[in-house]
Amino acid sequence: MIGRMFPQIRKLGVLLLLAGLSAMAEPVRVLVAYHSQTGNTKQMAEALAAGAASVEDVSATTKSIETVSKQDLEEADAIALGSPVYMGDAAAEVRAAMVRWSVEFGFWDSRGLENKVGAVFATGAMPSNGKELTMMSLATGLLQFGVVLVSPYGSLGASATTYKPDPGVDEAESKIARDLGRRLAEVAGRMKRGAE
Amino acid sequence: MIGRMFPQIRKLGVLLLLAGLSAMAEPVRVLVAYHSQTGNTKQMAEALAAGAASVEDVSATTKSIETVSKQDLEEADAIALGSPVYMGDAAAEVRAAMVRWSVEFGFWDSRGLENKVGAVFATGAMPSNGKELTMMSLATGLLQFGVVLVSPYGSLGASATTYKPDPGVDEAESKIARDLGRRLAEVAGRMKRGAE
Amino acid sequence: MIGRMFPQIRKLGVLLLLAGLSAMAEPVRVLVAYHSQTGNTKQMAEALAAGAASVEDVSATTKSIETVSKQDLEEADAIALGSPVYMGDAAAEVRAAMVRWSVEFGFWDSRGLENKVGAVFATGAMPSNGKELTMMSLATGLLQFGVVLVSPYGSLGASATTYKPDPGVDEAESKIARDLGRRLAEVAGRMKRGAE
Amino acid sequence: MIGRMFPQIRKLGVLLLLAGLSAMAEPVRVLVAYHSQTGNTKQMAEALAAGAASVEDVSATTKSIETVSKQDLEEADAIALGSPVYMGDAAAEVRAAMVRWSVEFGFWDSRGLENKVGAVFATGAMPSNGKELTMMSLATGLLQFGVVLVSPYGSLGASATTYKPDPGVDEAESKIARDLGRRLAEVAGRMKRGAE
Repeated sequence: MIGRMFPQIRKLGVLLLLAGLSAMAEPVRVLVAYHSQTGNTKQMAEALAAGAASVEDVSATTKSIETVSKQDLEEADAIALGSPVYMGDAAAEVRAAMVRWSVEFGFWDSRGLENKVGAVFATGAMPSNGKELTMMSLATGLLQFGVVLVSPYGSLGASATTYKPDPGVDEAESKIARDLGRRLAEVAGRMKRGAE
Repeated sequence: MIGRMFPQIRKLGVLLLLAGLSAMAEPVRVLVAYHSQTGNTKQMAEALAAGAASVEDVSATTKSIETVSKQDLEEADAIALGSPVYMGDAAAEVRAAMVRWSVEFGFWDSRGLENKVGAVFATGAMPSNGKELTMMSLATGLLQFGVVLVSPYGSLGASATTYKPDPGVDEAESKIARDLGRRLAEVAGRMKRGAE
Repeated sequence: MIGRMFPQIRKLGVLLLLAGLSAMAEPVRVLVAYHSQTGNTKQMAEALAAGAASVEDVSATTKSIETVSKQDLEEADAIALGSPVYMGDAAAEVRAAMVRWSVEFGFWDSRGLENKVGAVFATGAMPSNGKELTMMSLATGLLQFGVVLVSPYGSLGASATTYKPDPGVDEAESKIARDLGRRLAEVAGRMKRGAE
Repeated sequence: MIGRMFPQIRKLGVLLLLAGLSAMAEPVRVLVAYHSQTGNTKQMAEALAAGAASVEDVSATTKSIETVSKQDLEEADAIALGSPVYMGDAAAEVRAAMVRWSVEFGFWDSRGLENKVGAVFATGAMPSNGKELTMMSLATGLLQFGVVLVSPYGSLGASATTYKPDPGVDEAESKIARDLGRRLAEVAGRMKRGAE
């Protein structure tokens, strides 16, 4: 059977070789877009980027969502999206960005974000005060753009409870963000290598 | 037993009489706050207000959420909140209003919206494209302020699918909004009469 | 104006007096229905019932959801519903109960739960692992039956994180459940007194 | 630069060639697991499987979730999960399956479903009556197992409104399911080819 398929296999081998070369030449790019007022969500964003950058041939950038450009999104292989919880759900700034990406940047019509890999994260003052709803909101936004979603094992995204019982982002919460960053980068690499 | 409790009953009767007088003097006020770009959510808001106003001793007002004042909210016995779906969830304008009501109007600290009665509604272009998530977002916002939530029988809020399969708000969708308005007004009346 | 309305007021006063008598004769009944495997959700149920029972003229009962009868539900003025998180959402046992209440007990068709007052609670091993989604599931179930929903100030329901960072239900989590129980009983009393 | 990396490239080429051969030898397997009482969810499952099977080198199977075995799940590269809406959320049978997969089949501890590709679908009698919440429940279940999630463009999953305004699964709803099946198979193929 291998003999019969020989010419095809050879062609495939060449294609895969070229894909391999191209994959080695271009790193996987991870964009971590967030809104942050007090710095907690920024801290989670940085932990996530550090986790992503720990993977070989991956570059990771954090950007306040207000400054994310069309080009930033086009160049990204993976997009992590983070928001604090305000009154139980995502920040207006993040909701506004979804519309900007869709309409102003034209990604809804161009389908330019399709098959990028995504992940979400959130911070909130109290336990169960809207971090899950916020992450559902962010995840839904990404999925509607055709993004493929990855999550931490056992939850929808990386989250931190930043006021009670303990203030700020603690080490366990940072670790979940770092691990999610690594996983996001790995799956993005896999999707990139697997592209035909 | 009635005899033994006589003085208390008499006192209660007087209190309830006064409560009844006060309830007859002041109508139940329903505020329908919405964001609308194409007019569909406004149309649902008006249907909801019409349903509320059809209840005796109820006055209902619709207001674009950008123009809702602190006083509007203070005077309302019931608040309906509506949003179109943008990229799978509530409009940024509505999310921003939740923060304005909380921080700028001070309702978070004053608990000034507690025990008002609330309901939610949403419009979206396509079936199952985020109307439920939008209504969860709006409902969560109201509940976090201590609002008591009512819904149409069998769903979380009143919703309309405004592009496919049929464009705009149809009669069945309007009816659900009207019925929700009536129910909202009735429960608000009941909460008002039952206040000690 | 009061003079002009005199006969009506008198009639109203009598009605309210009778309502008051009836309210004094019959306590507000709170049913706390839960599923529990390890005992954590049961503990939250008991805290909620204790909070409810601390309100004057309120009786509260906890029942494993498997044993809740049609009569239990009919007699309740308020229903609290609780579940542990299993794989990110409510227990199958609770989902099955919603269908039993609807079809076997006939509450969907009879609308027999309409205008009762409800609240929800959940326990889960880890932060943000599905407690919010579980509470949305429970809240949606109650709302679809026409139940009027109350929540703790600032969240959708009472919840406890029972494994990490600290095991079991702690005092802060119990307190939220007790407070929710009290609020549930108070709003149920108000709805009962306000019934025409 | 290419010269300098020559031995590595050659090794990579060989690896990719082998990966290519292996990919050609083993089809991508898509498992569509569903619960269905009236046949509507089964119909959506079959549309999804047909879409998946239309992709080259893809085999697709539909199975009632009660009969899905550990081996079915192990062998699948992609898992679609579907449920009807009962009282606003997923069927108890599907919730029970999540626990069975986790505990009885041991997939929680073995992480045996990690990096498989998943998608969700739902049917419900009325518009906005819980199909989105059902899909969030199913999506959350899959994501907690480490599944990578894909969705139809513009929504969280494929859904059908099966009673009002029009009964059963219509052609537009079937098409969304077919398209989702195709997309699921394509992304699963890409993840498989891209595995190192």
